[in-house]
Amino acid sequence: MAAITIRGTGVSEGIRLGKAFLYQPFISQGKSVRDTISEEEINDEVHRLQLAKEKSYRELDELIERTRAELGKDKAAILMAQQAFLNDPSFCPEMEKLIRQRRYSAEKAVNEVVEQFAAIFEGMNDEYFRERAADVRDVGKRLVLHLQGKKGTALSGIKEEVILVADDLAPSDTVQLNKKYVLGFVTRVGGKTSHTAILSRSLGIPAVVGVGKNIEQINDGDFIIIDGSTGECIVNPNDRLIEEYEAKRQREEEALRKLEQFTFKPAITADGFRVEIAANIGTPAEAKPALEHGAEGIGLYRTEFLFMNETEMPSEEKQYEAYKQVVSAMKGKPVIIRTLDIGGDKELPYLSLPKEMNPFLGYRAIRLSLDQSELLVTQLRAILRASAYGKVKIMFPMISSLEEWRQAKAILEEVKDQLMKEGVKFDPSVEVGIMVEVPSTAILADKFAKEVDFFSIGTNDLVQYTVAVDRMNEKISYLYDHLHPAVIRLVKQVIEASHREGKWTGMCGGMAGDPLAAPLLVGLGLDEWSMVAGSIKKVKQVISQINRKECIKLVEEILELTTTEEVRSKLEEFQKEKGLL
Amino acid sequence: MAAITIRGTGVSEGIRLGKAFLYQPFISQGKSVRDTISEEEINDEVHRLQLAKEKSYRELDELIERTRAELGKDKAAILMAQQAFLNDPSFCPEMEKLIRQRRYSAEKAVNEVVEQFAAIFEGMNDEYFRERAADVRDVGKRLVLHLQGKKGTALSGIKEEVILVADDLAPSDTVQLNKKYVLGFVTRVGGKTSHTAILSRSLGIPAVVGVGKNIEQINDGDFIIIDGSTGECIVNPNDRLIEEYEAKRQREEEALRKLEQFTFKPAITADGFRVEIAANIGTPAEAKPALEHGAEGIGLYRTEFLFMNETEMPSEEKQYEAYKQVVSAMKGKPVIIRTLDIGGDKELPYLSLPKEMNPFLGYRAIRLSLDQSELLVTQLRAILRASAYGKVKIMFPMISSLEEWRQAKAILEEVKDQLMKEGVKFDPSVEVGIMVEVPSTAILADKFAKEVDFFSIGTNDLVQYTVAVDRMNEKISYLYDHLHPAVIRLVKQVIEASHREGKWTGMCGGMAGDPLAAPLLVGLGLDEWSMVAGSIKKVKQVISQINRKECIKLVEEILELTTTEEVRSKLEEFQKEKGLL
Repeated sequence: MAAITIRGTGVSEGIRLGKAFLYQPFISQGKSVRDTISEEEINDEVHRLQLAKEKSYRELDELIERTRAELGKDKAAILMAQQAFLNDPSFCPEMEKLIRQRRYSAEKAVNEVVEQFAAIFEGMNDEYFRERAADVRDVGKRLVLHLQGKKGTALSGIKEEVILVADDLAPSDTVQLNKKYVLGFVTRVGGKTSHTAILSRSLGIPAVVGVGKNIEQINDGDFIIIDGSTGECIVNPNDRLIEEYEAKRQREEEALRKLEQFTFKPAITADGFRVEIAANIGTPAEAKPALEHGAEGIGLYRTEFLFMNETEMPSEEKQYEAYKQVVSAMKGKPVIIRTLDIGGDKELPYLSLPKEMNPFLGYRAIRLSLDQSELLVTQLRAILRASAYGKVKIMFPMISSLEEWRQAKAILEEVKDQLMKEGVKFDPSVEVGIMVEVPSTAILADKFAKEVDFFSIGTNDLVQYTVAVDRMNEKISYLYDHLHPAVIRLVKQVIEASHREGKWTGMCGGMAGDPLAAPLLVGLGLDEWSMVAGSIKKVKQVISQINRKECIKLVEEILELTTTEEVRSKLEEFQKEKGLL
Repeated sequence: MAAITIRGTGVSEGIRLGKAFLYQPFISQGKSVRDTISEEEINDEVHRLQLAKEKSYRELDELIERTRAELGKDKAAILMAQQAFLNDPSFCPEMEKLIRQRRYSAEKAVNEVVEQFAAIFEGMNDEYFRERAADVRDVGKRLVLHLQGKKGTALSGIKEEVILVADDLAPSDTVQLNKKYVLGFVTRVGGKTSHTAILSRSLGIPAVVGVGKNIEQINDGDFIIIDGSTGECIVNPNDRLIEEYEAKRQREEEALRKLEQFTFKPAITADGFRVEIAANIGTPAEAKPALEHGAEGIGLYRTEFLFMNETEMPSEEKQYEAYKQVVSAMKGKPVIIRTLDIGGDKELPYLSLPKEMNPFLGYRAIRLSLDQSELLVTQLRAILRASAYGKVKIMFPMISSLEEWRQAKAILEEVKDQLMKEGVKFDPSVEVGIMVEVPSTAILADKFAKEVDFFSIGTNDLVQYTVAVDRMNEKISYLYDHLHPAVIRLVKQVIEASHREGKWTGMCGGMAGDPLAAPLLVGLGLDEWSMVAGSIKKVKQVISQINRKECIKLVEEILELTTTEEVRSKLEEFQKEKGLL
């Protein structure tokens, strides 16, 4: 048999060699399903839908039980969120309406409503929310499975090391995954931001997605090689290829082992400039893994997730418990808690937010928190109470004017007075800072620096606004780049402004976790770097192998450049010289 | 009878006293209309819709004929655009589909499709496009009128001076308006950006809109007073009130007469600093009125309108004719032609553009022109050919990086070479500049200034991106203000960067036409100011009564301020001291 090479998108680095396991959760729905039904069939069709809903609900019940026992509470929570969809008043009832009013078949009604939900989630800016598109589609598939009474293979069938080959992976599949046995993933659909891609990166499992129709070249049990960097997938390789890739895999492993040693080292340049490396997290459960990845603190705790997984506003008590959990887990290491950054693209069912033409330029974050201040008061009370258990810092998102900052600060002072009167314990000297993600705030950094305790630059939004580009928009995402010379000027201006007033600047956007940008940020004097936990050791490695003095010179040269491309080349050249690339 | 005061939104300044004329174009559609029909009625319903379409089409034919003869080609064009909707392949056919597939009544089908169209137009950034929402609703009303066979009063009934009182005014109403007889407007619905508001300002007729249910207090023939500044409307005023308002009206008229003398004077400060005052236009027909309002050039010719009123891409010849018409009308005065700023929120039927989550941060303007460069080439050929007839300057919109500017410039040079080879006449020394409306470009102004001939600051978009606020979003539009300290810093930076390289800076956003901002812009040294023609004399008046030296001192003070509110107060104080407020 000759080797066949098929190509997809590499979304999680690493080479793996192994046996293919073809996963088909539901046997192909090839049987033609009707789109519409007759008037007389309406009641029967609604009944079919209800039965399917009940079966799905019960099945999820069992799955949740098993997952909780075998894989823990957090994984089970994903399935509980799916179950919540089944009870959402605009989910199944909306399908029923389509059956009754438009005479849709139950399958078509499920599909229509699921895609409406998915489209909303997919348009959102935040990964947490985008992943819910996969959840809702997963629920839809389960409903259709029960409508049609079909069954496929199960992931529980995996008892040896394999490379999983599938159409796509749904959240309810992946919670059942035994990481021990799965060497890699290959999927027919998906791209860099698909559920499988995000999952594989967070698990550190190599993955190639979006290989398309060619996936049919892979048979169950075939020996395959995947390269998660290049997107290559070789089916039935000959011995020469196996040898070549096995050697490559070993070299990669060796480099990884070398990298491993940086995990718990401080991030300090060869000439002694030390910075703080922290992690971005979204749930209390991520605090421990962050520490294990070498985080020296939490630079951004996104509190949105806590609000999103609910049917009503979480109480002060519930919030307090979550914040306290993070603070306690970090054992005195700093935790920057960002107040609610919701609205616009991120909807909450219990806040009825207006549909907006340009949600990224809309009613969100601090704008919403100041407008609905009871929300902010409750959150600040919970955060302050948690501050008694460690080193908490408070950060307001999307500040665009001094007025907003002053209003938010005034509310915080009121809440502190209140707690003081009530005799509630909290850290009275908690530091208070702002996200710098709106250009106006970067431009006025010198004025802000006189009033705030610290800045944290959110490069993701800052780039979007500065260059006027929605990075989720594929037609123009090529314009989105944190190495744009204008962005670098703003970052410089913010850091310098803070230092002039004896304050410090952090960064919690993607730029902080980009190893290529590290010498630039060292040169600019960034004090605190917060990133996804997985990037920490690599960034620490780069920092430990460069000199601050050289980086300052590098910055001077970069400031003379006029295009993103020139900046990128200059940084690549620098790292090549240092043997880092 | 006691006087009654009712209140609405004043949208066009001025006091007027006169007799109310109640205009009811279609008698109330109070009769209940069915929403759905039975299967058997489908064909009849489709036939009803077709009849209504034909009647509407013929009626518009007559109206167009009469309008062209009595009021000219431009007014007739508005009605022709309405007629075009009736032939749009996604207009009536879509209604028919709703009747056939969803069993909608014809009225409901019309309403649904009309509102879909209107919603798209209303979300657009540009006034020209937003006005089309009124057009499409107007067509919808006409269709429903014919579906129901009803008639109302006509505007042609006006033979004496009256204040027009109506539910709302549609474009097909206003084209029939005899300006001589209409003293003012009062409408039940509408706000600052409604069709009636825009129209009244452009005609200089005082108007109060959005008075709501209270409009029923006004009977046909009642004597009323309206104040287009305060939004007051007094029904059956007593003699004292009439005297008081008549005196106020005369004072206003006197102030206006004084202002009139500035129309054709140069804009020059008391200490001899002279700037150029130009107008923004959207169609060739606006060139003459711009001159009549005292414009010394066209600072922004938006070419979008030319592309929008078409079913296919306008040919080079057609574009050339339009540009030449403007250039010729301006008789050697400078005309800055901006290349196509379309896409995102502004759709063209013959370009199939993707739906976007955040169109303001999307695929538009130069991004689209560089991606579909045949479009840009055609437009540049047409502009260059027109340059033989006057003083043309070319401007690229939404430049966010040096790369984009260089690409656009390279295409222009190719087009020039091409024309040269073909022996076509054009001005080889035509100046080429860019809009500064994306923060990154303002931030890198020093780099750009080495390469471009001029800048024109588009404050509307620049404010939107710098402060991350969609000014059309009512929930947060309070954040949109061109006096934001960060915006002022960017404007300063751009002007200074251009002067250091011996280039000049213009401004074509709303800030240039704001009399309050004039001393600030004089202090900053803005070279060219482009605004809606109606603002020219007021801005010239302010400039002629201030000193450059004092303005420079004012700028220094303003740069110390931290909030928009402080800037506004400082500017108001300055103008009060000078007797300008």
